[in-house]
Amino acid sequence: MVNKIWQNVRTVHQKNPLVLNITNFVVMNTTANALLAIGASPLMSKAEDEMNELALISNALVVNMGTLDREWIEAMTLASSIFNELGKPWVLDPVGAGASKFRTVSARELLKNNPTVIRGNASEIIALAEANFSDSYGVDSKHQSRDAVEAGKKIAKQYHTVVCITGEVDYVISSTKMAMIKNGHKMMTRVTGLGCTSTALSGAFIGSNSNYFEAAVSAISLIGVVGELAEKQSKGPGTLQMNILDLLYSISEEAFTSNLKIDLHELP
Amino acid sequence: MVNKIWQNVRTVHQKNPLVLNITNFVVMNTTANALLAIGASPLMSKAEDEMNELALISNALVVNMGTLDREWIEAMTLASSIFNELGKPWVLDPVGAGASKFRTVSARELLKNNPTVIRGNASEIIALAEANFSDSYGVDSKHQSRDAVEAGKKIAKQYHTVVCITGEVDYVISSTKMAMIKNGHKMMTRVTGLGCTSTALSGAFIGSNSNYFEAAVSAISLIGVVGELAEKQSKGPGTLQMNILDLLYSISEEAFTSNLKIDLHELP
Amino acid sequence: MVNKIWQNVRTVHQKNPLVLNITNFVVMNTTANALLAIGASPLMSKAEDEMNELALISNALVVNMGTLDREWIEAMTLASSIFNELGKPWVLDPVGAGASKFRTVSARELLKNNPTVIRGNASEIIALAEANFSDSYGVDSKHQSRDAVEAGKKIAKQYHTVVCITGEVDYVISSTKMAMIKNGHKMMTRVTGLGCTSTALSGAFIGSNSNYFEAAVSAISLIGVVGELAEKQSKGPGTLQMNILDLLYSISEEAFTSNLKIDLHELP
Repeated sequence: MVNKIWQNVRTVHQKNPLVLNITNFVVMNTTANALLAIGASPLMSKAEDEMNELALISNALVVNMGTLDREWIEAMTLASSIFNELGKPWVLDPVGAGASKFRTVSARELLKNNPTVIRGNASEIIALAEANFSDSYGVDSKHQSRDAVEAGKKIAKQYHTVVCITGEVDYVISSTKMAMIKNGHKMMTRVTGLGCTSTALSGAFIGSNSNYFEAAVSAISLIGVVGELAEKQSKGPGTLQMNILDLLYSISEEAFTSNLKIDLHELP
Repeated sequence: MVNKIWQNVRTVHQKNPLVLNITNFVVMNTTANALLAIGASPLMSKAEDEMNELALISNALVVNMGTLDREWIEAMTLASSIFNELGKPWVLDPVGAGASKFRTVSARELLKNNPTVIRGNASEIIALAEANFSDSYGVDSKHQSRDAVEAGKKIAKQYHTVVCITGEVDYVISSTKMAMIKNGHKMMTRVTGLGCTSTALSGAFIGSNSNYFEAAVSAISLIGVVGELAEKQSKGPGTLQMNILDLLYSISEEAFTSNLKIDLHELP
Repeated sequence: MVNKIWQNVRTVHQKNPLVLNITNFVVMNTTANALLAIGASPLMSKAEDEMNELALISNALVVNMGTLDREWIEAMTLASSIFNELGKPWVLDPVGAGASKFRTVSARELLKNNPTVIRGNASEIIALAEANFSDSYGVDSKHQSRDAVEAGKKIAKQYHTVVCITGEVDYVISSTKMAMIKNGHKMMTRVTGLGCTSTALSGAFIGSNSNYFEAAVSAISLIGVVGELAEKQSKGPGTLQMNILDLLYSISEEAFTSNLKIDLHELP
């Protein structure tokens, strides 16, 4: 598996997938840079006037609900329905689902367009799985990621999707398999948008590999290993963000494969 | 006072206040990172559909007029009125007040919702205090901060608020007290949004300390000392921004208290 | 020419031009920082309510179509028409022209307001020159910059403007002259928005020098040399972005003039 994941990392560099992003204002710059660093091409637009044309030339779509309002949710709905109809992959980041009714409802509506991958923290995944509100502490997670595994399995089965729950341990769940990734570092929670970066990278991987479970596992593995190694060279969250971009660009096979801590399970 | 200020810095780390930000596109990423670095949790939304719910879970609100338009001013007005009614603290950054009628009028309207703290440069504070326009050099200040002290005192008394005027010397003014902080470095004016960062940090401090004068003094002191120390390790504004985030995260009590240059006055 | 270009770099520091930017969400922070680093003052607003007042106090306008929608294109049209009427210089970055009908049409409409400078990659300049679509690979260029030189000459003549085509070699073209600049480094394509940074810097230079060809040549030369030197100190795109900001702020005359590789031609 580890070698296959590394192959997927190389494939992104070779295929240079074009990733359309409808994402939040806070992370647009850093997620565009993360996509460029791994060899993908980011494109950021929410304009309905060009959505059909952009969908045709793009390899994947990233929908991130971070700075949501009605205008943006309309763009997200339109874009994801186009990708769904075209049979092109897309990833949903239900930022803040559970923190407000507006977000929970919006995330559930987007689910109807069959996201290929969903990436969230434990609270968001739990909120998506519950019919009603979960309390939430802003956009951070106060649940441990393992608390959301059952919710993730339920969503993965019901929506035929891949669910990534990131946290101290990261879980990637399909209807038949589950990967647990134990990389990363606590300081990463002090850099804004590294969860959104996982989501964006997932877009690049599903845009260049049609085995979506493997693609999502590869994206989450990459940011986990890179974040962990970057932290060792960092004095704080400022240098950490910078070193993560450098390492996404330059990490070697040896550094990646020898540091990845992953377990793979078949699900019953 | 210096030890009390350091205690307030520690309190933010311990209480982990949730700070709702309606701020400008230019600084969303860097101010979210600054809030995370000091131990607060940023939340960025302007959606009217969720404002009541987000206000209930947040500890403070930051309103920053940087990239203003009608839609945003409506969101700022709604959010600040909710915080005002809930008796929760909020901070106003009247970016560019005085540079256009639209901004001056918008800032004055927001004043009606009783900001707990106002943070601006000298031109902005003067424009707020004057009934008519002051000329302005964009969003930078061409006035010295001391030129705005009388304007600041007037606003602090009239609106029962705390006014922070940042510049070569920083002034924090309540109706009964004034602090002068002589930290910082000129290179900080070559990094975009460090004024907005002062404002955002003020939000975290008033969200975790109900002595709002002391909270504002602590926020302005922290960014001043951190900026000054960060500059010593920086080759230019790129490294300066990064080192500021690192030091907001890691500054020691010894480094902070031995470098803070502050004077405190009772006002007549 | 090289000494004159360096003089123009110094002039920006001395005149401190105020540059109004209507630009995309992805690069607002980094282009504001680039403008500050070279000694200019950025101002970011799209509010129609203040556009007349801001135009009066600004020295130049930057219009960048990166994250376009109808609301933004209206603001860009209004602002550029005001600058055109005032006889103040403005620069157009037709991001993604050719990638969608919406972008191509929008860019052509903006041309009617007589941009002083147009800065794009080869695909964008070709799309502008063609009456119909060119295929396009997102917002990256798949054409070489030299492929667009004839298109650039046509636009420069027809619209009495200066056209900058950036790529492996940069071309700056007026109706009578052409400069070729052979600086920069491939890693710069892995940092988002460095093309937008060239555009923003062009705004600062035309805002402080009425010889617009020379101003554009100076801006493109500066980012090229700075990017090339910054790459030598960088481990990846994260450090590269930071080092570029540092060097825009601190580059010496000696480092600049000895590294600039420029050829100047009279056009027939």
